[in-house]
Amino acid sequence: MLDELRNQAGEDPSPSADNPKIPKAVIKRLSLYTRVLQKFSMSGIEKISSKELGDALGLNSAQVRKDLAYFGQFGVPGLGYYVEELRTRIKSILGTDRTVRLALVGVGNLGQALLSYTTQFQRDGFRVVVAFDADKRKVGGERMGVPVFHVSDMGRHLKEMAIDIVMLTVPAGVAQQVTDLAIQAGITAILNFVPERLLVPEHVKVHYVDLSIEIESLSYYLK
Amino acid sequence: MLDELRNQAGEDPSPSADNPKIPKAVIKRLSLYTRVLQKFSMSGIEKISSKELGDALGLNSAQVRKDLAYFGQFGVPGLGYYVEELRTRIKSILGTDRTVRLALVGVGNLGQALLSYTTQFQRDGFRVVVAFDADKRKVGGERMGVPVFHVSDMGRHLKEMAIDIVMLTVPAGVAQQVTDLAIQAGITAILNFVPERLLVPEHVKVHYVDLSIEIESLSYYLK
Repeated sequence: MLDELRNQAGEDPSPSADNPKIPKAVIKRLSLYTRVLQKFSMSGIEKISSKELGDALGLNSAQVRKDLAYFGQFGVPGLGYYVEELRTRIKSILGTDRTVRLALVGVGNLGQALLSYTTQFQRDGFRVVVAFDADKRKVGGERMGVPVFHVSDMGRHLKEMAIDIVMLTVPAGVAQQVTDLAIQAGITAILNFVPERLLVPEHVKVHYVDLSIEIESLSYYLK
Repeated sequence: MLDELRNQAGEDPSPSADNPKIPKAVIKRLSLYTRVLQKFSMSGIEKISSKELGDALGLNSAQVRKDLAYFGQFGVPGLGYYVEELRTRIKSILGTDRTVRLALVGVGNLGQALLSYTTQFQRDGFRVVVAFDADKRKVGGERMGVPVFHVSDMGRHLKEMAIDIVMLTVPAGVAQQVTDLAIQAGITAILNFVPERLLVPEHVKVHYVDLSIEIESLSYYLK
């Protein structure tokens, strides 16, 4: 009934030890660890402790060690981690040691805003390689250097261009239909900006970007 | 050194009992609880258990009870919660039992996309009441029914219009300057879409919306 909300609920509080289901918050922290490690690396620091890594993110060292333990043995007990080695290994875990290929569906205001993130995306190892829209006036040329095709040709292009992740910024009424087409074309990861529940098979992962939740949680801190 | 990353690191793993520092993830889950409760309410359900509330979000019932316990006594042990009562109390905790007043700074692609969220925002109890830009061509009229003023007049308007939260979608180079002006005008909550660290005094809360982190964590699930 409320699958879309589950995706936003954060921690799975009880990953089992033999078949560890890694909590989503751990995956997001991996992303943050690579950023901290990159800053340390750029400052010429070669080795750090779990405490130093945690301090930079407001986490305690036990949390850092627990997070990394999901993925095997890292660093030397009592000595710490080699900054570059740890960074490379985490990027390999995240799959961002290669360029992640993105497609954008829906070239409206938000879609165009995402296309203009080019510089930041490239720095982080992503590339928007193709965009789709249903409006024929937007189709045919390029926006921010990205070719825009009609959404009716989406399936073919998604396959041919070996797209990893689809970013969805279409009107709510067509979100499910576009999702179905993308999944038929082999897509298994969707970043959904549409405030709409998507029904997807189990092997497909949907992340929801819901600004209302960000605003509500800020509202809490106003008092 | 890395304050901006702390804000994204999620859980504070050790809130103390006498002076509870509520983990950020709990606040976000409150927001999700209100959505679930609203759906239950609309389905005519009057009473639910912590298990039912948890099930709808993929959380166990202990997590639900622990989250709510930060804010006092809710429901009746063994009987559950009254849906409407719980929803009202959580909205009051979040401060969304009244309309939260937003200002947008930066009417570029992303800014315009945010202005077009009007319908969803209103449903959730927010209202963008004013926007600012440095480009004189964008200033003077309205966009999506929201008046746009020049950023040099921002301080005055933020005060006069009793703004609660500023959404920042300006170029990275001016983000800090705009932030300083907003804080001088009494703003204590900022939703920052600029991939840039903001230096703020301790009483000011900044939430970062970082799409790279969403994409990286999706990338992990591709394998």
